[in-house]
Amino acid sequence: MHPFDLAIQLEAGATDTFTGATSSQYANMVGPFGGITCAAMLQAVMQHAAIKGTPVAFTINYAAPVQDGPYEIKVALMRETRTTQHWFISLSQGDEVCNTATAVFAARRETWQATDRAFPAGVPGPASLERAPTAMRPTWVQRYDMRFIQGDLPAAFDGVEQPDARSVYWVKDEPARALTYPSLAAICDSFFPRVFVRRHQFMPAGTVSMTIYFHADPDALAHVGDNHVLAEARANTYQANFADQSAEVWSAQGQLLATTHQIVYFKS
Amino acid sequence: MHPFDLAIQLEAGATDTFTGATSSQYANMVGPFGGITCAAMLQAVMQHAAIKGTPVAFTINYAAPVQDGPYEIKVALMRETRTTQHWFISLSQGDEVCNTATAVFAARRETWQATDRAFPAGVPGPASLERAPTAMRPTWVQRYDMRFIQGDLPAAFDGVEQPDARSVYWVKDEPARALTYPSLAAICDSFFPRVFVRRHQFMPAGTVSMTIYFHADPDALAHVGDNHVLAEARANTYQANFADQSAEVWSAQGQLLATTHQIVYFKS
Repeated sequence: MHPFDLAIQLEAGATDTFTGATSSQYANMVGPFGGITCAAMLQAVMQHAAIKGTPVAFTINYAAPVQDGPYEIKVALMRETRTTQHWFISLSQGDEVCNTATAVFAARRETWQATDRAFPAGVPGPASLERAPTAMRPTWVQRYDMRFIQGDLPAAFDGVEQPDARSVYWVKDEPARALTYPSLAAICDSFFPRVFVRRHQFMPAGTVSMTIYFHADPDALAHVGDNHVLAEARANTYQANFADQSAEVWSAQGQLLATTHQIVYFKS
Repeated sequence: MHPFDLAIQLEAGATDTFTGATSSQYANMVGPFGGITCAAMLQAVMQHAAIKGTPVAFTINYAAPVQDGPYEIKVALMRETRTTQHWFISLSQGDEVCNTATAVFAARRETWQATDRAFPAGVPGPASLERAPTAMRPTWVQRYDMRFIQGDLPAAFDGVEQPDARSVYWVKDEPARALTYPSLAAICDSFFPRVFVRRHQFMPAGTVSMTIYFHADPDALAHVGDNHVLAEARANTYQANFADQSAEVWSAQGQLLATTHQIVYFKS
């Protein structure tokens, strides 16, 4: 079993409840990588007997640190219409809620389509780039093959302020694994805090709320398979402990798979 | 009392419960303007006795249409830490949930700050622009003084596809009202569906999920007062019934007050 699938493995318990546990393979500096928590909460909804359609929107709030060990995920279908489902999800340890999330699922049909945002220009293929280092980085980084075109963290935090916080990189699971909605969700949280990239400085920082809009249908996911996807992120503003960022995840063929936004706490 | 304040007026009921009613002044084509529903749900949290800090992130899901008439808003403090609060909010009519939302509030301190995103270039002041028409538009549009630099809806839907869906406009409450967090939230939903702007074509469309990141502190809101703010929006992609957009709201002095994203259902 792939370490990603092990990390998001859930056991159905009481009605609308699933139990799981953190995985040391996706450890962050403290507790688990936020992306794997997000993936597990999405997985809980997808595993629910009442699920219909595919994910359209997912917002996760990182309310408090998840401790290494078991957790419980509760899912509630708040409202269903003919074509959509609205879910509320919470992840708890003991009596304490660590994460909340909302998910929108829908039955989607072909319509007129267009993409106004452009695929990043001048991007060399992943084969021509070296894999980013994993030493001196949190464990979860070992679970991704990341190949940066721009905006990796510096080898040493030299404190030299950069003009912006743009990062562009190819990324896929390591070892290779076919892309699924939960793994795409986790990749949406694989961007290092923009404030590290912008300031070349380390400080306490962590995602507080993240939203993902899924544009890929199951065929688009299957088409990516276990190949790299292209991730691009930039920051908007950093003000009074919080910085926000926007990002996209593209297939190598230029299909926009997901857009994602988050607001990140930082100190100093 | 200003029509906005009347529209979001809530009465405290049972524990963690508030009641309100839709306002004909903020009517949309069917039911109320989504921005006023969003404002009322944020207002409910801000009115709660346990509230601490100022809003950082707010995500609202439009699960089903709100009918004209009374509604009930329930708020639940899911988790509190030393500096943050995570709330879950739902708006119901009868036994049916119409909207869900999550809110993050925080006590914020001054830190290093920067804004990577640029204020739109070449923007004339609001005094030199005409107010956008309100005739043939939903009632809520009358409650805003909008002055477009780019990307208003065409006078007639001619079906001529545009190269993108960028809109830039000055906006403020009509009649004038000092900016508050709820009114800023409503402005974040004042963008017409991007698909109308892109295609110059009308079709069934509506916001499904919207996220707002608040960057303005109370001083920044007070500094805006009842002056126009500058709103800019663009679309990322339109695929299989859903289109996503990203937008910013700036003060005239170039301070980024809020960034906001949404995914919008469209048919055809």
